[in-house]
This record gives sequence, C-alpha cells and structure tokens, in this order.
Amino acid sequence: MMDKKLIGIDLGGTTIKFAILTVDGIIQQKWSVQTNILDEGTHIIDDIVASINHRLALYHMQPEEFIGIGMGTPGSVDIEKGTVIGAYNLNWNTLQFVKNQVEEETGISFMLDNDANVAVLGEDWMGAGKNSKDVVFITLGTGVGGGIIAQGQLIHGTKGCAGEIGHVTVDPNGFKCTCGKRGCLETVSSATGIVRVARQLSEEYVGNSSLKKAIDEGQAVTSKNVFNYAELENDPLALKVVDRVCYFLGLALGNIGNTLNPNSIIIGGGVSAAGEFLRSRIQTYFDRFTSPQVRESTKLKLAQLGNEAGVIGAASLALNYLEN
Amino acid sequence: MMDKKLIGIDLGGTTIKFAILTVDGIIQQKWSVQTNILDEGTHIIDDIVASINHRLALYHMQPEEFIGIGMGTPGSVDIEKGTVIGAYNLNWNTLQFVKNQVEEETGISFMLDNDANVAVLGEDWMGAGKNSKDVVFITLGTGVGGGIIAQGQLIHGTKGCAGEIGHVTVDPNGFKCTCGKRGCLETVSSATGIVRVARQLSEEYVGNSSLKKAIDEGQAVTSKNVFNYAELENDPLALKVVDRVCYFLGLALGNIGNTLNPNSIIIGGGVSAAGEFLRSRIQTYFDRFTSPQVRESTKLKLAQLGNEAGVIGAASLALNYLEN
Repeated sequence: MMDKKLIGIDLGGTTIKFAILTVDGIIQQKWSVQTNILDEGTHIIDDIVASINHRLALYHMQPEEFIGIGMGTPGSVDIEKGTVIGAYNLNWNTLQFVKNQVEEETGISFMLDNDANVAVLGEDWMGAGKNSKDVVFITLGTGVGGGIIAQGQLIHGTKGCAGEIGHVTVDPNGFKCTCGKRGCLETVSSATGIVRVARQLSEEYVGNSSLKKAIDEGQAVTSKNVFNYAELENDPLALKVVDRVCYFLGLALGNIGNTLNPNSIIIGGGVSAAGEFLRSRIQTYFDRFTSPQVRESTKLKLAQLGNEAGVIGAASLALNYLEN
Repeated sequence: MMDKKLIGIDLGGTTIKFAILTVDGIIQQKWSVQTNILDEGTHIIDDIVASINHRLALYHMQPEEFIGIGMGTPGSVDIEKGTVIGAYNLNWNTLQFVKNQVEEETGISFMLDNDANVAVLGEDWMGAGKNSKDVVFITLGTGVGGGIIAQGQLIHGTKGCAGEIGHVTVDPNGFKCTCGKRGCLETVSSATGIVRVARQLSEEYVGNSSLKKAIDEGQAVTSKNVFNYAELENDPLALKVVDRVCYFLGLALGNIGNTLNPNSIIIGGGVSAAGEFLRSRIQTYFDRFTSPQVRESTKLKLAQLGNEAGVIGAASLALNYLEN
C-alpha cells in the first residue's frame, strides 16, 4: 500500500497553481491554470474542481489516495467554515463557500488559509525555516505581508489580522498608507515603497547619481533598479535608499524579534531577490534594535522556496490539519 | 468525591505567595512567607516545600487531593526540566532543580514558568482576559515585562525571550537601556523610566509647574507623583510627560496589535494604578498606530487581579499542563 498523497493549491489573481506532493513535501506533479475572475469570480471554484478531477483521471488516482487538499487564498478566511470573503483581486466580494463545494465535488477533505500564512508554512516545512516551531515570514512584494508560526501553530489573531507585518508603524510621521494610517512598513519597503523612498531622497540629494538622473529624466524606476544601482554601481543615492529601507526593516523585524523571539525570520517576496546584499543590511539594523538574547537566538534568513512556497505550504496545511 | 484542587505559588524577591484554588479559579486559602535569599538562595525551595507540607497537615489534606502545583518565578526557566537559572533577586546564579525537589518532597506534580508569563495566564483566566485564547499582558513596574498567549498557548520563543515587551525599541535615538541598546520601551515607561522622561522634559520646560518645581528642588519624584500632578492638578509639565509616555506605549502596543491581533492587551503592574487616566491616553495613540481592523478588534484593558495574578496564573499552569 502506497503512502497517501497531498494536493496543494496556490490561488492567485492571475494563475491557480496546483501540485501533488508526498507527505515528505516532495512535489510529484505540478500544473497551473489561468484564474478566470469574470462574473464575480464565480468560475474559480468550478475551475479548481474540474482541474483536480481531470488530473486525477489522467494519473489514474482515486480520492482515497489523498490525505486532503490544502489551499492558500487572498482575502479574509474563515478557517473552520472554509469560506472566503473580500478577495478583491479575484472579484470575490461576497461570501464564498469554498470548502463545501470542493469536498463535495472531489470527494477529498479540504482546508484553506490566507496566502501569506500558507507561504510561512511552506518555508517552515521545506524551506529556510527547517521545520522550526517558531518562525516569522515577511514577504516584500507589491505589498508587504507576513505570517507567524509560534510553538508550531499558525497564529491568526482574534480577527485573522495576525502577521500583517506590513502595517507595523515604523515612521510615525511618514508616508500615508492605503490602510489610512501613516508610516506603515509597507509604505517604505514594498516594491513601490522602495521607489517612494528613492523619490523622496532624490529630491534632497545633491551630487552625481545614476539613480537620481533616471528619476529626474522620468524613467520608470523600479525597486530592482534601485538595488542594481546600489549593488553593481555603488551609486551613492541608491545606497542611501537601500540603507533607509533596511533601517525600517531592521526596526520592524527587530521588534518582532523582541516580541516573539522566533528561531528565524524569513524574508521572501520579489524584493528579496536582492539576496544577501539586502539581508546583510537588514541584519545590521536588526542587531542594533534587538536585545542581546534575541540578537543571538533569532536568525534573519532569505526565503528558499520562491514560487513554490504557496503549493508546498498549502499541502502542509492538509498534512497538519486533515491527517486524522 | 470532592473535585481536586490546585496550588499556585508566586515566588518573588521579597515574599513567596501561596494559594489553594478550586479548578474554577476560586482562592480557598492563601498565605505567604518571606523569601530568604541568604546562602545563594539555597533555603528557598526548602522553605516552599516546608510551607506546603505544613499547610496541608493543618488543613488535613493529602497530596492526592491536588492536580498539581504551579509556580511563577523570576529568572530563565527550563519548563520541561523544571529548572531555573539567573534569578538575581533570589541570589540564584546557578542552576536550580526546582521541580525535582518539590515533587519529591511534596508528592504533588509541579510545573513552573516565568513570572510575567504566569501573570498573563492569571489575567487571562480570572481577570481582564476573560479566558480569551489571544491575549497580551504588559506589566509596568520597576521594569517592563510581558507575556503572550496566542491561540491558547503561552508563547516562549526559541530562547524563552518572547513577551519581553520592555525591550521593544520605541525611540531609536532614545535613552540607553540596561540591556545595552537604546530607546527600549522600558526606558520610558517603567516607574523609573517615567521619572526619566519627566526630568528630560523638565529641563526644556519653561513655565509654571509643580512637577518642575519638585524636580528642581531635588525632591524624590516618583511616577505616581507625575500621574498625580497630571490628573489632580492639571500640571502642564506632568501632562506633557504622561502624553509622551503614552505615545511610546501606544506605539509599542499598537505594533504588537498589528503583529498579533490579540483579543486584548492588558496593562498591569504598579504604574497601571493610574487606571483609566493612563489607559485612555494610551488608547489615543494605539488608535493612531494600528490598522483599522486591529483598532476595531484588539481591546486595551486594565489588569483586574492586582497582586493575586501570580498565584492564580500559577494555579492555571497546573490546571492546563498537569491535569492528565
């Protein structure tokens, strides 16, 4: 008798990624379909169910061969009921009964959680977290999100907002955030936040700088450009921008370290492609802003799974919560 | 057959408090003995054991009538081994095998944890937490400590430093802290921290103020004086000091709210005697520094148990971890 398998789903606004995994976290099959957000996203669950059933038929697999399906989704999740609301990039404005439909139409148990939470599960299980029971994950992308595992449990908070690290206040008089308050970490360390810091520092900067020139000439500067100018050209303004961004990240992550003392804080998302150049500079400020015991015991790491964190984490959701 | 009972112990540098409680958290007996820290604190566990055995004989109770003994202690705790080290106010500089000795000499199961963690258990169980599964406790006393319950579990962190809220950085260029870094919450919101802020603001203050007068005359100003001048006399400098202190508390607690989204954050310790006058002013800044969803769902509350939080929380440690 073969070991049972897991299905992990990473539901995003552009594509839906699927994978079949072993209970050891090894991906055996993976595929994806485009997300059809038309008609208020009413096709999405139909498409997910159809795609799973099609693949199982293709691989001659039965529902009984699976422990369960796990899924990461945008929006506000009710884990117990298996519902989602307010996933605006999916056009899901009304309550979606995801779990009921998927279980009914596939015959496989289903569990879902917020996509940022699922990513931390993935990085913890098969990536940089190395299966630690205390891990914090921060994702630096279009926005800044995060997830917290404490003593082996994903932490949700009383209204599901735990881990929303992007809205930690790092600069009380700083930029206005989409959430309505000022100085959120997201305003200075998301991909667009980094460009915002670059534009601000550029205004007051006097001297030679390719970054300043690009901004002044109205070029479409990205956060990747900022890191490239800094790392490859030693551009003095770009270095200042990176330093400012890393100061805020070091302050926020340092205080998360002081509060939770996790084994590791893992930095992922598109901006983390800047790699060790970014990590080491955050570390400098992290060290300044943490108490000695936290500085010694909480490690700052780069994410390892990239794009696959979602499906792997989703599968671990099934493994951890549906096994019995 | 009677329900089994719990014993809670709150071990402090001055007194050791004991209580016998029902499984509903009702204190049936309480007593205390002085802490004898002589001879490197070697008498402390002997005294605890003797006091328990004496009381059980007095009340004609047997070890079998107890689920267990819980204890809160200063210092670094190894929960599994039941040992303590580095409790300097007890003169415990070497490893203390607390659990082994207590269990052997009383015949009752024993469990211990850090005193700040035990206080949050107490406030959660029988005080302001109302048995929520997500509660953060901050104690404003000689120092600033804290404890975190997330999803029903006390959070310890990888090296037991979780909940050390006193070392969250709130003012990167602020006062130097005993921990070695700058601008820790403790430096501006402990009893001595509040006086430090008062002295700093007094130097730059021009105008009539009883607080400034007291400081300039070299009187021994306490944090309680500061709050009294502010609340009872509307002293303009004292009001500024309270505002500054509450700004830092609102920033730190707001960010803990943004990170963990607990049901409540409970404010205790000696400084919290300032009551609603203090809480409402922290709330103002908490509201400024939290995202809208956290602002709506995470409540700031005053502690309710006062001195008894320790023994009640210690008893709940026994109830939660020793029942089986």
